[in-house]
Amino acid sequence: MNIAEIHSPADIKGKSIDELTQIASDLRKALITKLAHHGGHVGPNLGFLEATIALHYVFDAPTDRIVYDVSHQTYVHKMLTGRIEAFLDPEKYDDVTGYTNPKESPYDLFSVGHTSTSVSLASGLAKARDLRHEHYNVVAVIGDGSLTGGEAFEGLDFASMAGTNFIVIVNDNQMSIAPDHTALSENLTALRLSDGKAQDNYFKALGYKYIYVKRGNNLEDLIEAFRSVKNINSPIVVHLNTEKGMGLPVAEEYKEKFHYSGPFDPATGKLVGDSDEPTYIGMFADFAMQQMRDDREVVTITAGVPGAVGFGPARRDEAGEQFVDVGIAEEQAVAMASGLAKEGMKPIVAEPATFLQRTYDQLSQDVAINGTAATFVTFYTGVWGMNDATHLGFFDVPMISNIPGILFLAPTCAEEYLAMLRWAVEQKETPVVVRTPGGAVVNRDGDFAVDYNKIGYETVRPGRDVAILAAGSFLGMGIEAARLMAGRGLDPMVINPRYMSRLDTATLDNLRDFRLIITLEDNSIDGGLGQKIAAYLGDAPVAVKCLGLPKAFPDRYRAADLLAASGLTPEAIAGLA
Amino acid sequence: MNIAEIHSPADIKGKSIDELTQIASDLRKALITKLAHHGGHVGPNLGFLEATIALHYVFDAPTDRIVYDVSHQTYVHKMLTGRIEAFLDPEKYDDVTGYTNPKESPYDLFSVGHTSTSVSLASGLAKARDLRHEHYNVVAVIGDGSLTGGEAFEGLDFASMAGTNFIVIVNDNQMSIAPDHTALSENLTALRLSDGKAQDNYFKALGYKYIYVKRGNNLEDLIEAFRSVKNINSPIVVHLNTEKGMGLPVAEEYKEKFHYSGPFDPATGKLVGDSDEPTYIGMFADFAMQQMRDDREVVTITAGVPGAVGFGPARRDEAGEQFVDVGIAEEQAVAMASGLAKEGMKPIVAEPATFLQRTYDQLSQDVAINGTAATFVTFYTGVWGMNDATHLGFFDVPMISNIPGILFLAPTCAEEYLAMLRWAVEQKETPVVVRTPGGAVVNRDGDFAVDYNKIGYETVRPGRDVAILAAGSFLGMGIEAARLMAGRGLDPMVINPRYMSRLDTATLDNLRDFRLIITLEDNSIDGGLGQKIAAYLGDAPVAVKCLGLPKAFPDRYRAADLLAASGLTPEAIAGLA
Repeated sequence: MNIAEIHSPADIKGKSIDELTQIASDLRKALITKLAHHGGHVGPNLGFLEATIALHYVFDAPTDRIVYDVSHQTYVHKMLTGRIEAFLDPEKYDDVTGYTNPKESPYDLFSVGHTSTSVSLASGLAKARDLRHEHYNVVAVIGDGSLTGGEAFEGLDFASMAGTNFIVIVNDNQMSIAPDHTALSENLTALRLSDGKAQDNYFKALGYKYIYVKRGNNLEDLIEAFRSVKNINSPIVVHLNTEKGMGLPVAEEYKEKFHYSGPFDPATGKLVGDSDEPTYIGMFADFAMQQMRDDREVVTITAGVPGAVGFGPARRDEAGEQFVDVGIAEEQAVAMASGLAKEGMKPIVAEPATFLQRTYDQLSQDVAINGTAATFVTFYTGVWGMNDATHLGFFDVPMISNIPGILFLAPTCAEEYLAMLRWAVEQKETPVVVRTPGGAVVNRDGDFAVDYNKIGYETVRPGRDVAILAAGSFLGMGIEAARLMAGRGLDPMVINPRYMSRLDTATLDNLRDFRLIITLEDNSIDGGLGQKIAAYLGDAPVAVKCLGLPKAFPDRYRAADLLAASGLTPEAIAGLA
Repeated sequence: MNIAEIHSPADIKGKSIDELTQIASDLRKALITKLAHHGGHVGPNLGFLEATIALHYVFDAPTDRIVYDVSHQTYVHKMLTGRIEAFLDPEKYDDVTGYTNPKESPYDLFSVGHTSTSVSLASGLAKARDLRHEHYNVVAVIGDGSLTGGEAFEGLDFASMAGTNFIVIVNDNQMSIAPDHTALSENLTALRLSDGKAQDNYFKALGYKYIYVKRGNNLEDLIEAFRSVKNINSPIVVHLNTEKGMGLPVAEEYKEKFHYSGPFDPATGKLVGDSDEPTYIGMFADFAMQQMRDDREVVTITAGVPGAVGFGPARRDEAGEQFVDVGIAEEQAVAMASGLAKEGMKPIVAEPATFLQRTYDQLSQDVAINGTAATFVTFYTGVWGMNDATHLGFFDVPMISNIPGILFLAPTCAEEYLAMLRWAVEQKETPVVVRTPGGAVVNRDGDFAVDYNKIGYETVRPGRDVAILAAGSFLGMGIEAARLMAGRGLDPMVINPRYMSRLDTATLDNLRDFRLIITLEDNSIDGGLGQKIAAYLGDAPVAVKCLGLPKAFPDRYRAADLLAASGLTPEAIAGLA
């Protein structure tokens, strides 16, 4: 059949293996074509292509509930559930998001972007089914590294106890984003090497029946396995040995690089339009490498995303045991850093802001209450970070800056970023967060080698009557707004507040009789810096206007649009004065 | 020896088993005497008494690092490390906290109050040791239910990979606070029943060597086991079968009741000064029970703390499969609730505010982004909640109220609490947090059966010029302050804002020309409601003063002192106007 005619899973049911094999081949070709032009999660989707076909061939979604973990591995699921045009017609490539999304389709049960959640979410679906005495299959797909997350363990540990139908599909491609290095990955390896028969099976230890599918990209084997567990009346794990990147040689060979990729040449794997502009991520990685070379007490830690923080295979090799990838296990990363700092070491936890959300309690309890002087660096922050609703970097400031005892720094330029990083790593007084600025790298003159636990705000432009406090990556916007105001005869002050977690009250007191203070911050405004300043000056004559990103989960927004809608343009800001 | 002469672990080293047995007996007597008079964690400490002696007999703390999980099981550790007077002299009972605390002793490595952290923290210590090529033992004690927490799994899964000395002592007393009901507890049971030989050993699956100590309250066996693992050059789990409450018959029999207890009669177990005043917790439990009786779609979920939210054994029995204790696994509790709500069920997650901190990301991703209409009820909130630095209920408001898409309600009295709970459970529009008020139960007349997704603020007292916005359990303080002001000829308005997560801008706009607005909130003020109001009115003539609890981790404070220091007395508030 022509894959353009697949409107729902019903259209593939009853096909012969030969026909399915042809469909798989056609889907793969279409997928590679789209991925090469558009970019996306390459390896995860190619590796799980046959399994997705087999799932929809055997199970009856949406009556049978299929919950996908991470959900960046659901492109084929989308192709089979009424959204094939978004993979065939370049004009429609952006009609679908990169994750499951209930607004797109009844086959998508949850919006999921963070890992390790499918089993827990599915356990709620199964509980509802059981309380209602209904009968259908609940299937949780997990893999691509997600088993190392604590939420996945909590889900597995709990869900088997009901003793009813609960099917966990483990997509074992031997990787998270980078290669896995935890005990569980060794357990999976032992199971693969023994054809599923190794002793001390992690899943059996957690109460699951277990079957192993050696050829996890073979449609016949997959269909047979899924048929054997359909309508089972107990919890079972189906362990699939899949090949990440299957069918695209460059993705099979460079599995980490092709976990996610921008547009590329499918023959050579070369990125299209790859830039060699300097980036804050590269700057961080160079800094951390140099610190580690110079000082054996420095340890850089990440949780499953080394490449995303500048630590590709070459840097990891050089850093050796001073670089630690704990796997997708953010809680472990943060608590371990506290342990290292307790011994006087200099840990640096490097993590996208969105994923650090897993660690509110560890930052509060394991770190802040203990005052362990670890450094945390957040990435992909603010409006120029990742723009999927599930991956926003808007919330590190409200989440962390209100925890007592953590100093939250927001550098405004490359020089300040490096100075803050250096200071944070070397000091022994306090836990520090350094927020990697969003957007293009900015350079600026200034005296940045200061003690950030003592110094107050930086006056970037002296002035009177009107002050713009522009934090982090919004400093440039503040300076530009001031220039526009100056063109109108005003003499606005511009301040870099440096901190998101505390106030320089001496400086703020000097502004009490100003006419207007405008605060700018590249994060969700609720719980942020501007509201603290407004409250501190609540009884002063000065008017305070707080601007920042909305308290919302915008999906796939354009940065310029969101900024304009939030009043965050130099013109709009200048118009306030 | 007289246990009063134990000043450090050195004082027990080299003693014979007979002498140690006598010491154990004397320590137990002293501990029971203190616990009966003072209250505290009864069962965990009695059950781990022999193991603690054996740990300090065999290992050489503080050179050997011993990290205790939860750390409410460290009373005997304190008795052996220079703090025996605080267990012998009633005048000094309060000289020690109920948890490990580095400010008290170099033998206490971390302030720990939440569960499941010891392995992760210890993995950082071990990494520091290994990078420095030092040689000592790193020992992580875990148990009393903590293994079910995701952080414990992440730690175990990671820590074994170093392959160096790492000793995990599992204190298996077959309980968390209540009996455990997860797959892992079944795995531990299988190991106990097989004398450690059962197949599919969870710890072996995660890369640990393993030994089992059947008589986990027998000093000789414990010492032998610890000696056999001291200085081992690999990761190993020592699984101790201990008896929670050992040596106090009422605590052995009523393990859940005597996990933690106020002062009690050691012969009968009867609580001293037990009150039958109504409590918000009792009110919640009655409400949830009735909802479950009336409606099979209502499910009450807690994470390991059923008693703390009013669900003792009798209510749990009656609720049957509509009550779910997921074990100490807060992430699972929240994600499961999202799954239930997705199916149109009516889940209620009941959890102390301090422990819900584990779930920032689940609340954001699994719940808020998905808009699943689950109800979350926080307990032990605000200044009248638990007063240990590690257990404060100050932060649920700043943590949760800044997450988009969650409605955070703060009831001011019993009638409003029940009305908000009822509304939250029945509505299908939005995730809702209902904050259980702190302090004594307050009753109040009013029209509380309203649609809390639509209605604005409640005017409790009309007035002019001055407005007091008093949230949740601080409404009474606001009313009293208004009374004092009225006595001075003022006519202050008092407002119940109802919400911590959003503003009633229409009402606030009517206050723009007031002279003064005072906001009162029973939570850490940074990131709270007052700052949002101050920012919203930042350009209005009205002065705004925000009062609330400090951004800090005060330890064992007296509520009256903290309130006075924060300006939170009716007199101080009245003085602002």
